Amino acid sequence: MTEQTPATAQTPAARPDGRAADELRPVHITPGFSKQAEGSALIEFGNTRVLCTASFTEGVPRWLKGQGTGWVTAEYAMLPRATNERSQRESVKGKIGGRTHEISRLIGRSLRAVIDMDALGENTIVLDCDVLDADGGTRTAAITGAYIALARALDWAVEQGHVRRDAAVLKDSVSAISVGIVDGAPVLDLPYVEDVKAETDMNVVVTGSGDFVEVQGTAEGAPFRRAELDALLDLAVGGTARLAQRQAEALRQARA
Amino acid sequence: MTEQTPATAQTPAARPDGRAADELRPVHITPGFSKQAEGSALIEFGNTRVLCTASFTEGVPRWLKGQGTGWVTAEYAMLPRATNERSQRESVKGKIGGRTHEISRLIGRSLRAVIDMDALGENTIVLDCDVLDADGGTRTAAITGAYIALARALDWAVEQGHVRRDAAVLKDSVSAISVGIVDGAPVLDLPYVEDVKAETDMNVVVTGSGDFVEVQGTAEGAPFRRAELDALLDLAVGGTARLAQRQAEALRQARA
Amino acid sequence: MTEQTPATAQTPAARPDGRAADELRPVHITPGFSKQAEGSALIEFGNTRVLCTASFTEGVPRWLKGQGTGWVTAEYAMLPRATNERSQRESVKGKIGGRTHEISRLIGRSLRAVIDMDALGENTIVLDCDVLDADGGTRTAAITGAYIALARALDWAVEQGHVRRDAAVLKDSVSAISVGIVDGAPVLDLPYVEDVKAETDMNVVVTGSGDFVEVQGTAEGAPFRRAELDALLDLAVGGTARLAQRQAEALRQARA
Amino acid sequence: MTEQTPATAQTPAARPDGRAADELRPVHITPGFSKQAEGSALIEFGNTRVLCTASFTEGVPRWLKGQGTGWVTAEYAMLPRATNERSQRESVKGKIGGRTHEISRLIGRSLRAVIDMDALGENTIVLDCDVLDADGGTRTAAITGAYIALARALDWAVEQGHVRRDAAVLKDSVSAISVGIVDGAPVLDLPYVEDVKAETDMNVVVTGSGDFVEVQGTAEGAPFRRAELDALLDLAVGGTARLAQRQAEALRQARA
Amino acid sequence: MTEQTPATAQTPAARPDGRAADELRPVHITPGFSKQAEGSALIEFGNTRVLCTASFTEGVPRWLKGQGTGWVTAEYAMLPRATNERSQRESVKGKIGGRTHEISRLIGRSLRAVIDMDALGENTIVLDCDVLDADGGTRTAAITGAYIALARALDWAVEQGHVRRDAAVLKDSVSAISVGIVDGAPVLDLPYVEDVKAETDMNVVVTGSGDFVEVQGTAEGAPFRRAELDALLDLAVGGTARLAQRQAEALRQARA
Amino acid sequence: MTEQTPATAQTPAARPDGRAADELRPVHITPGFSKQAEGSALIEFGNTRVLCTASFTEGVPRWLKGQGTGWVTAEYAMLPRATNERSQRESVKGKIGGRTHEISRLIGRSLRAVIDMDALGENTIVLDCDVLDADGGTRTAAITGAYIALARALDWAVEQGHVRRDAAVLKDSVSAISVGIVDGAPVLDLPYVEDVKAETDMNVVVTGSGDFVEVQGTAEGAPFRRAELDALLDLAVGGTARLAQRQAEALRQARA
Repeated sequence: MTEQTPATAQTPAARPDGRAADELRPVHITPGFSKQAEGSALIEFGNTRVLCTASFTEGVPRWLKGQGTGWVTAEYAMLPRATNERSQRESVKGKIGGRTHEISRLIGRSLRAVIDMDALGENTIVLDCDVLDADGGTRTAAITGAYIALARALDWAVEQGHVRRDAAVLKDSVSAISVGIVDGAPVLDLPYVEDVKAETDMNVVVTGSGDFVEVQGTAEGAPFRRAELDALLDLAVGGTARLAQRQAEALRQARA
Repeated sequence: MTEQTPATAQTPAARPDGRAADELRPVHITPGFSKQAEGSALIEFGNTRVLCTASFTEGVPRWLKGQGTGWVTAEYAMLPRATNERSQRESVKGKIGGRTHEISRLIGRSLRAVIDMDALGENTIVLDCDVLDADGGTRTAAITGAYIALARALDWAVEQGHVRRDAAVLKDSVSAISVGIVDGAPVLDLPYVEDVKAETDMNVVVTGSGDFVEVQGTAEGAPFRRAELDALLDLAVGGTARLAQRQAEALRQARA
Repeated sequence: MTEQTPATAQTPAARPDGRAADELRPVHITPGFSKQAEGSALIEFGNTRVLCTASFTEGVPRWLKGQGTGWVTAEYAMLPRATNERSQRESVKGKIGGRTHEISRLIGRSLRAVIDMDALGENTIVLDCDVLDADGGTRTAAITGAYIALARALDWAVEQGHVRRDAAVLKDSVSAISVGIVDGAPVLDLPYVEDVKAETDMNVVVTGSGDFVEVQGTAEGAPFRRAELDALLDLAVGGTARLAQRQAEALRQARA
Repeated sequence: MTEQTPATAQTPAARPDGRAADELRPVHITPGFSKQAEGSALIEFGNTRVLCTASFTEGVPRWLKGQGTGWVTAEYAMLPRATNERSQRESVKGKIGGRTHEISRLIGRSLRAVIDMDALGENTIVLDCDVLDADGGTRTAAITGAYIALARALDWAVEQGHVRRDAAVLKDSVSAISVGIVDGAPVLDLPYVEDVKAETDMNVVVTGSGDFVEVQGTAEGAPFRRAELDALLDLAVGGTARLAQRQAEALRQARA
Repeated sequence: MTEQTPATAQTPAARPDGRAADELRPVHITPGFSKQAEGSALIEFGNTRVLCTASFTEGVPRWLKGQGTGWVTAEYAMLPRATNERSQRESVKGKIGGRTHEISRLIGRSLRAVIDMDALGENTIVLDCDVLDADGGTRTAAITGAYIALARALDWAVEQGHVRRDAAVLKDSVSAISVGIVDGAPVLDLPYVEDVKAETDMNVVVTGSGDFVEVQGTAEGAPFRRAELDALLDLAVGGTARLAQRQAEALRQARA
Repeated sequence: MTEQTPATAQTPAARPDGRAADELRPVHITPGFSKQAEGSALIEFGNTRVLCTASFTEGVPRWLKGQGTGWVTAEYAMLPRATNERSQRESVKGKIGGRTHEISRLIGRSLRAVIDMDALGENTIVLDCDVLDADGGTRTAAITGAYIALARALDWAVEQGHVRRDAAVLKDSVSAISVGIVDGAPVLDLPYVEDVKAETDMNVVVTGSGDFVEVQGTAEGAPFRRAELDALLDLAVGGTARLAQRQAEALRQARA
């Protein structure tokens, strides 16, 4: 569909790590990394590593009480030395920055999109995504890993009797990937070195069924044309389909 | 491309204010509303009213000094009683919420996308968008109005000799509109009553030339299909083309 | 009345805008400026513009519950570009400055002075005064406009049945004006250019009946004598009497 | 002048501590209470005790540099158990309340009114007024005591050669007292039990020469008439004249 | 007792104030210094002066309710000019520093160690220790003085009937002292000039029976040997025994 | 020395994990866990896991400039789900708690005790210790792991030429362990279940040479006797000697 668009007409330069334009970085998922959380996973997209935990508690915030429905929220943060240069802790600054807020909200919305809140009942799940190493794509890795932590916390809740075994709390799986236009060519899953020089940068959140939960595209350099947008969406749909397979495998092994 | 998609196949329900699906609310732009700012505009999208000011100052933040390039940033806020129920001031809470952060960053990125920072020289422009009345679409009205304030501040800067008359600081115009799927049908420029029941909500920022600066789509209810996404983008491109005309008229009159 | 006081013995210099010493700047009151608030008014004292809203809600803070009495409080703020140079938002600073605190408290006390809290019943009114343009006298314009917003919110509350029609919640009207000694002469309603060079600056809050609610006089330069204080009070009483008429007219038209 | 006003026509009720209406509480001033500060005084108005220190440092804030002029500022605070019920520390709350801000600013303005900033030269004095026991009149005691601390810090600065011996930095002395209308009668120097039931409450700051620096009158209950205001000012002028004598004595002894 | 430890083998240099190595500075305790608090004491260790108050209130924090047990907590702070150079107020900074937190927690733990919380019943005591003058040892003076304030507040509570007369709320007395190695020699009760050059600094909290509540030793310069630690503990035990006597005397006089 | 003390006379109850009283939990050290930091280690004391990074930067804070000496500081934090119940992020609370402050300061002091700041030169090292899983002893694991991160960062600095190869920046190694009295018996390296019921809790920081850097003992229940203190110190010295061996092994392997 995208072969005749100008953006892809040129032969793309080789990527720094030698990947094809539509190739993911190596993905590793370690469910149960945290010993305390009801559900958890360490997820790696190349050198990016995010520790995702899901904390399940009975009850909901006061303003939701008595409605028979649950609550899922998320918080994202980076360890100070996840990045190449140390960044100041937000706890020390005394306030949370705009980027952190934005990503926390994105993760929360993405996971809520695949949850049946009525089936969850009056229970709360808090997803914490802490970036141990950042090399691009931390928010997409966080969403993809948070899904595993969430699924495992629900497994736990079923076992403990907090949620009925036949309650279909998860309506679908969800994963996310970044795409962008680098040196004029659309590429999938950008590491930091590509991210900083991307003209356009897009994060796409997709369900296991292939529908969109979030599309967030930003022109970092020049505005982008409709054909470029289409090419990026194609790449993202392909990438998230493969992530959905990896999630399914990880859960199968964890439940074995 | 979208004619056979189920989303648009059904006859859409009448909109609460009787508009066609692809019709904007009445748009009014009052350049020069503020007496103190170098550039300003009061912009109205229906009942939504945003006061946009552009403050021009010589010099740039320390970390940019000596690079011969300018800086443009934006801050968005709502008056406490812009909404139907009074909301607490963020100054009283002592911190800025995630939504405010997110929108401020979006406005800043959108305006920077049409600015040639080298042509601006070592000057700083701060855009303030304060919502006086909120009835949906405050962030898109803010972007559209901030462009007018920005353009007028640049007119002022040229007159004052801070920027050369032939410096093409503005590479293009920029405007924004919301689109969404309400009762299964894609519609343009959602007021609050539609916004709260939209299954999918998207904000699209487009240049005068019709290229994309930002695409932010969120599934509030069910995830959305590619055909729905395409239909929404079509609507947004049509709406922003008309906004670009209104911006051009407003500037022509202000400069007369 | 003040002819024999030493302060006015000298022939006063012409005022920058040509007004007489005891003349108000043009006053405009636009009740109902905000579409969402129960009561509102945009008030202009010359170039100073303040948007005042009154938010009426049933119930009172917890510490007042069960006493059958209401609560009225006020918050004052300036938009960042209300002034000649942009000032940083207090929400961004993370704290409210002393001046803002001081004025918010003054507005609250001034309005409470004319309210019968028992007649109000267990209801709360929050007055928000946001300065759109600042050219001296913002606090006095805020008090004068807040009275209109308050009166209109009470009209609404009576219509809605939250307050009995015969409850005399408002015991009187209230307005405020600044007076000061500039170049040795007492003058009324100082714009910014006079305010910065005033030796003595006083804000006076007066009821419709002509009694004092607040008298706040400050020697900015040299301490002031009793005769000067008397001359300033005379000016203020005259100015607020005219403001009370303007308030009455604005309410009459709004209620028509 | 006030003999025929209704407010004083009635025979005033006896005051709780048996004082005459125009009588001060016992005043004690202990200069040099703090061992570390360049100037200090513990001041007592009855049971109210305030520790005032003046910290002298060479240099001024950056925005004042090179102008040959000094800077004086003040901070007021209450120990948590200065009051009958313990109040939370503002450091623990993480922000300073409106009342604290207001009083700190009042103290600063009052002291600056008697200082010749050019004579002070590029030096800074910070006045700290910490209330050890609060029984009404803490802000007026603070101003009266801060003058002593300030005068002693200037004595030190002269001795150390930071200020020339013949520089008349202090143009006058300054003191303050509260007055109010209690049970219909004007009274001087209100302790807490009178303060809470005062209909009108006024704080008056007066120079040694008897001119006004600040007049802050507030109707706590009913608005007040001009004649009442006059009676209160008379009382305050009498009270501050006696305070000025006490200040002079305290300084004479401290310098002996 | 310590004569054969290597640390004391060398002849110690004379101390700046001529004291013997195991000698306390003059200790003065003024119970009842504050007029408002249920219990209070001004305590002086040489030039160090700390005002300690104990605020007794019925009831406990929500999370303790219904357990029949009490709550004791402490807050420590320094007046801005307690030190040789003025330090910024933590209320102005908007946050409490690490040192303040650390000392507040130490005082709270120390006092709780001698309290029978069941005997206290559902009552809360807040200890406030505000340093008026700081010359080393402020935390140890605070603990020693807070014990007096606490004991007096309990006397008050017994008199008022909040605590039964035979409830042995205080299981023991508690006091604290600093010890350190200065110029190679262990010394007791270090003033500021010794504190800044101490190689090792230790604060020791000891009950009236001579048992340890807290031992906090820090190598400021070189790490310390076991023998040095032993010598310091010996000094501290001797010093706190004498402080316990002073506490007993002060209470005896206050109760007389 | 301690064999006849009552505290150890009784036969200790078996420990929950079957260890001997003087036995460490399994210790694992993974140097280089973080890919971005100049030095790093993941350290495990049983189920407690702490990620320690050392960030090396040229230059020192302004107040140290030009003195030819370096700066080392530390920050400690816990991930929200390191504990059995999720705790709120300090960045979300907007302030750092007392416990976090206290531990950060302890880690910083402990590491500085083995560093020759002159040999470090004008360079700064920030140690970040983030607890991934908390099961008692997080601060002692943090100190022990931070030493490895620090040593590796110095290796890096030597290789990069920031520090001379023969500069003996590290004067010694340093490690830490907790000891406590549980059920009347002194034990080493307490996991959470023992920690909560310890009567006395002590953290001891010891150099590779066996000298003390910090001794922090607290009576959680009853005050402790000198003999108990001695027994705890003996245990700690034994435990840290074994930790020093593990540190040496880990560094040998990392450098191989």
